[in-house]
Amino acid sequence: MTDTLNRSHPAPAAPAAPVTAAHAALDPADGERAYALDREFVFHSWSAQGALKPFVVAGAAGCEVWNYDGERYLDFSSQLVNTNIGHSHPTVVAAIQKQAAELATVAPSHANLARGEAAQRIVEKAGPGFAKVFFTNGGADAIENAIRMARLTTRRHKVISTYRSYHGNTGAAIASTGDWRRIPNEYAFGHVHVFGPFLYRSEFHSETAEQECERALRSLERTIQAEGADTIAAILLESVPGTAGVLTPPVGYLEGVREICDRYGIVWIADEVMAGFGRTGEWFAWQGADINPSRATPDLIAFAKGVNSGYVPAGGVVISPAIAAAFDERVFPGGLTYSGHPLAMASIVAALDAMTEEGIVENAKTIGEKHLGPGLRALAEKHPMIGEVRGMGVFWALDLVTDRGTRAPVGADVIGRLKAELMARHVLPFAADNRIHVVPPCIVTPAEVERALVAYDEAFTAVAAG
Amino acid sequence: MTDTLNRSHPAPAAPAAPVTAAHAALDPADGERAYALDREFVFHSWSAQGALKPFVVAGAAGCEVWNYDGERYLDFSSQLVNTNIGHSHPTVVAAIQKQAAELATVAPSHANLARGEAAQRIVEKAGPGFAKVFFTNGGADAIENAIRMARLTTRRHKVISTYRSYHGNTGAAIASTGDWRRIPNEYAFGHVHVFGPFLYRSEFHSETAEQECERALRSLERTIQAEGADTIAAILLESVPGTAGVLTPPVGYLEGVREICDRYGIVWIADEVMAGFGRTGEWFAWQGADINPSRATPDLIAFAKGVNSGYVPAGGVVISPAIAAAFDERVFPGGLTYSGHPLAMASIVAALDAMTEEGIVENAKTIGEKHLGPGLRALAEKHPMIGEVRGMGVFWALDLVTDRGTRAPVGADVIGRLKAELMARHVLPFAADNRIHVVPPCIVTPAEVERALVAYDEAFTAVAAG
Repeated sequence: MTDTLNRSHPAPAAPAAPVTAAHAALDPADGERAYALDREFVFHSWSAQGALKPFVVAGAAGCEVWNYDGERYLDFSSQLVNTNIGHSHPTVVAAIQKQAAELATVAPSHANLARGEAAQRIVEKAGPGFAKVFFTNGGADAIENAIRMARLTTRRHKVISTYRSYHGNTGAAIASTGDWRRIPNEYAFGHVHVFGPFLYRSEFHSETAEQECERALRSLERTIQAEGADTIAAILLESVPGTAGVLTPPVGYLEGVREICDRYGIVWIADEVMAGFGRTGEWFAWQGADINPSRATPDLIAFAKGVNSGYVPAGGVVISPAIAAAFDERVFPGGLTYSGHPLAMASIVAALDAMTEEGIVENAKTIGEKHLGPGLRALAEKHPMIGEVRGMGVFWALDLVTDRGTRAPVGADVIGRLKAELMARHVLPFAADNRIHVVPPCIVTPAEVERALVAYDEAFTAVAAG
Repeated sequence: MTDTLNRSHPAPAAPAAPVTAAHAALDPADGERAYALDREFVFHSWSAQGALKPFVVAGAAGCEVWNYDGERYLDFSSQLVNTNIGHSHPTVVAAIQKQAAELATVAPSHANLARGEAAQRIVEKAGPGFAKVFFTNGGADAIENAIRMARLTTRRHKVISTYRSYHGNTGAAIASTGDWRRIPNEYAFGHVHVFGPFLYRSEFHSETAEQECERALRSLERTIQAEGADTIAAILLESVPGTAGVLTPPVGYLEGVREICDRYGIVWIADEVMAGFGRTGEWFAWQGADINPSRATPDLIAFAKGVNSGYVPAGGVVISPAIAAAFDERVFPGGLTYSGHPLAMASIVAALDAMTEEGIVENAKTIGEKHLGPGLRALAEKHPMIGEVRGMGVFWALDLVTDRGTRAPVGADVIGRLKAELMARHVLPFAADNRIHVVPPCIVTPAEVERALVAYDEAFTAVAAG
């Protein structure tokens, strides 16, 4: 039977027929098969498996996805807030196709051109505070390795993070996480949680953003003192906490974190997995923190998602010169088979080049300032259910309440009905707790924003009436 | 600037020129650039960064890789023991190219056809003891999620694994690991280590394989009793410990583990990340454990690497019907953005179909029995440095000693010289501690084995003389 082995390596086949608007080839039977196979063989994340009725996606391009019946949906979820460049961007697809034919995988100990090119671009986007990139498979293991670097360079073990946060699902990452997903998974030690700033639902009895900033920083510093500053390796923060509700930090907060870290010799790890690479209208969210981002520069940046819009699983850590140099002579005790995976690296290079050349990050900023921000605030004036509109760029949350006075969150039933109304209007929504997150790709157009705003408006009206 | 955005989604570009034997397009300047970019911007795993001199890989096909000078190397490392199907397999490359154009990424909550097709195939290969697949990005997070499933279904927290093991680099995975890489990373609790069977360097004073099997099982059971059986969620074992030295378990050992797990209500997690999908000449290593693999069936199988030869980062957990059903009504508190990633799933489908149709797993078995095993044993007769030859299929280790009587391991200097001699003979080696692992792709031919054996022979002669 060995003579049937495919060793001759003929030319790879031509790629699939190009994705076209007509989608003549879509077969509803494939959709039924996909659904049946999913229900029988696929175990889904963060879910009870029995009652799942997954939406079957056949294909996607730009800000749209479609099913096997050819029904198109405006993707205002960016899937899991990762398709910053939109779906099926042609130059990223072409780069993946080319790299797949040349060299898909290589051991991380070897060098390859795509990896160096990707690392160079990421360091350039991060700016002069950064030197090297360690690549991982996604956001969770980026957090794991950032924590490892902080612990090893400080020779301290504790990590402070916030309750309203999500950092990934592996051992240290999930214990760093602040939301309910941490609770059944707390098998790591050295994790301390504090409340971060969030004026709309303040834990500090604040009435102004200035108060919230000052009190959150004071609470952080007091916790450090009470835990023992010389036990704290890192402060780990989403620059803009995402899944927790797009909790835009008050002006001065990240600068304050930087000062505290400097004062106590603590490493600041910025989790930019969701916020980074265009989502906030900046390459990194911390760069938009203030008029002087150089005073709010982290030591380590964890990234994934937007770096290549998730076309190939990839993440990593951008490392300051000091921390990188700490491992020049000393072995870094972390690694993984697909670190710097060529296929992933080629997709990063193509995605970052396209985002730069096409002004995609600037588009996200403009959309936020001129279209999505004003449009969502207008919705809030019309619908009393919308307690607060928060965000920037293409990173927004509608905090939904039963009463604007008490700010009591709406229940899961309301969110379920809103999701159904939005799906019925062919908008793919993103919901979390009592919120709808409005998170389209960074390439979204004013016209697409208008279409979505009409759907949100109708959906709120329908749910309020129902 | 928004008018420059690429929203029209024209047809994806044609793939790169096919990989050909001539490689006329290789430019040594690209190799120099890849090296320079790597040294400046890339942070490498498991290494001190200062002294690294990485080998630059330009391309690869089948069992060969080459650099930008067009020099070809026989890949007897399979990179990190992952390219089971060889490099640049044409149908896998074509499947990646096709899926990239149609739908690269989708939220894990949605369904897609490639994911269902991949899960179905994996469950079929695992056999009747398995029902569903949870997909991850690689081996480490497969282990994390298998441990999570075991803890949640048993409502116990401890995990027993062995000292001579490697399970990945994230929080729980690295604490489960037994080798030195665990030591600077032990920030998880609930991990208990025991010694597993390894007759050549027995911890149990055994003289026969039967003794080693019986004593290792007894030691395992006594540890369970001493820790408290009702605190033990899982026994986590590489079916054949790989990085630790291809420690082929004695006959009856895995059956004994199954019996112990049943006796104490413990979940058996088989780590098949390196051993699975053809490496041992079986789809899963535990299937070759005995004449009756049904008595050695694990509850959970963690996989990665060989499932798609690492062409796209992917891993997962194959789940027994009982454990899958435990989450029908109850939320599984684990997940990740790229779970069931379409591009990865398409590469799994294509890889498993090619491996099945081309008899690649059977080839690995035949190569081990008729070529690699006999050839390596003949080498050992000639070179006293080779203390033991262990393995099966395309999964072998040469345990190198300074003295066959004391079995004292050779030092790093000897391994360094062997690696250099093998590279000089254009064989890409895999070395770990005092060992050379002989781990070519499963598609390796008898002629390629012969070429490599000549190189190993010459390298041993050169090092012994030098």
